[in-house]
Amino acid sequence: MELKYAIIGTGAIGGYYGGKLALAGHDVHFLYHSEYDYVKEHGLDVKSVNGDFHLNNMNLYNNTADMPKCDVVFVCLKTTQNHQLQEMLTPIIKEDTIIMLIQNGLGFEEELSASFPNVTIAGGMAFICSSRVSPGHIVHADYGALTTAYLNNKYDHAVADQIKADFEGAGVPYTQGDDLKTFRWRKLVWNIPYNGLTVVLRTTTDKLMNDKASRQLVTELMEETVAGARACGANIKDDFVQKMLHNTDKMEPYAPSMRLDYDNHRAMEIKGIYSNPIAMAKEAGFYMKKVEMLEQQLKFIQQNEY
Amino acid sequence: MELKYAIIGTGAIGGYYGGKLALAGHDVHFLYHSEYDYVKEHGLDVKSVNGDFHLNNMNLYNNTADMPKCDVVFVCLKTTQNHQLQEMLTPIIKEDTIIMLIQNGLGFEEELSASFPNVTIAGGMAFICSSRVSPGHIVHADYGALTTAYLNNKYDHAVADQIKADFEGAGVPYTQGDDLKTFRWRKLVWNIPYNGLTVVLRTTTDKLMNDKASRQLVTELMEETVAGARACGANIKDDFVQKMLHNTDKMEPYAPSMRLDYDNHRAMEIKGIYSNPIAMAKEAGFYMKKVEMLEQQLKFIQQNEY
Repeated sequence: MELKYAIIGTGAIGGYYGGKLALAGHDVHFLYHSEYDYVKEHGLDVKSVNGDFHLNNMNLYNNTADMPKCDVVFVCLKTTQNHQLQEMLTPIIKEDTIIMLIQNGLGFEEELSASFPNVTIAGGMAFICSSRVSPGHIVHADYGALTTAYLNNKYDHAVADQIKADFEGAGVPYTQGDDLKTFRWRKLVWNIPYNGLTVVLRTTTDKLMNDKASRQLVTELMEETVAGARACGANIKDDFVQKMLHNTDKMEPYAPSMRLDYDNHRAMEIKGIYSNPIAMAKEAGFYMKKVEMLEQQLKFIQQNEY
Repeated sequence: MELKYAIIGTGAIGGYYGGKLALAGHDVHFLYHSEYDYVKEHGLDVKSVNGDFHLNNMNLYNNTADMPKCDVVFVCLKTTQNHQLQEMLTPIIKEDTIIMLIQNGLGFEEELSASFPNVTIAGGMAFICSSRVSPGHIVHADYGALTTAYLNNKYDHAVADQIKADFEGAGVPYTQGDDLKTFRWRKLVWNIPYNGLTVVLRTTTDKLMNDKASRQLVTELMEETVAGARACGANIKDDFVQKMLHNTDKMEPYAPSMRLDYDNHRAMEIKGIYSNPIAMAKEAGFYMKKVEMLEQQLKFIQQNEY
């Protein structure tokens, strides 16, 4: 089965995953915004720990109205742009299209499903260190696996298997599970402490881990998130927090995406990483108090420093 | 009764209150550190909303070993220096000396009482906007009342009355109450949100009040503090939080003392304003969770940015 893929938002994430698929010979259609002219002329350059590559003659667009209808649409925009999705995606959606949100945070698959009630929707968790260093230039420094699951576990198995086969054939480790909620919450256990605290305290993961007070706070934020996740029915094991701390101890000093957004005065993904999870946990009976304080501080910063 | 007064730490607070007593003709002995030479030569200059004044020929010292024993010792140092108090105060203490801590935060009178078990100890809450703008120069911009109470309510009433009379005669509104714990906690209801948040969010009181998220956080920090205070047996009325918010709304944009300490890379008074109250409330059965998060963030900042 030959699938037609769309990459909506070709940045560090979309450029890497879409680039890998295109490099392996698949039919990939890339939506660009500000970098359109540059990439049209020079192509896309990816420096990757798994081997550098360069793409020319890509299927490039700067408007979805010009794109063909696709079988699989990967949304790799910042979630702060998700209010545009309904209008943006409509031209490329057909009856059996799958939309996969490769984004951070909770609740967006459900939101999108309200806009496209008959379309199959999935979430993709990218475990990757990748950055767009200049127009048309991506550096993929580490990791790269994609973990996915379908909203309400409703999907066409043959197509899902083909997507998995295409990624694996292109050299991308790909896991498909059946519990989107658990996957999303697990990622939040890492994202909630490190994204917000590196912004509020203008620091990086290593400094948070090496200071007694902030390490304690990181741990408590993770534990609150696990408690919120479990209240919502997500399945998180008892040793998960210790594992996340341990993994972060071994990482290079790291500025998470929200810190990069802050440094570049881009809107921060507060809604998906904080407001939605806090509201869902509260609704389910658990009040993530310190997580909420981080949300309040980030909202202040976004409102007052931007 | 002629009382001999000592001012230990002649900054914005000690300089103003000691200066007012000296101006009114009382016998006041001032301990200076870095400004000693300047004030010896030029005197102390106070620009005050209640009338400017200048003092020459003050009783100046740069070491308590050279000072006379005093009847009333006002400690106006930052509490970050309180570990020096036992050694510093010993030369000027006699059997019936009263030591009054005109400082921020909770627990220091009790600590000092362990060092001087037979001495009368009091706490003074200064409600004043006063700053040291350069050596020997103080600007007193607003307010000025002193609210005091004696530790365990044990004191010589004749001396206490004389202190009150001396201050009132010198033009300082002076209240003496009988519940030090309540006074200290009431002041914390203001100090806890505004001191820490203006540092962590690099802002001022007005901006915190005008932003929806931070105003909510300020309110919650106040409510947590009231709950902690009540767990410890302090007496705080139901409308106190609304009053504090209302008063702050009416204030000029303000950078509290901890923000000034941060800006000038002076140690912050984290112990008295956060760690001690948190520990006392926890001991009494109430966990001030968001207040503790602020403490953790401030400790990180002090450890990593200084």
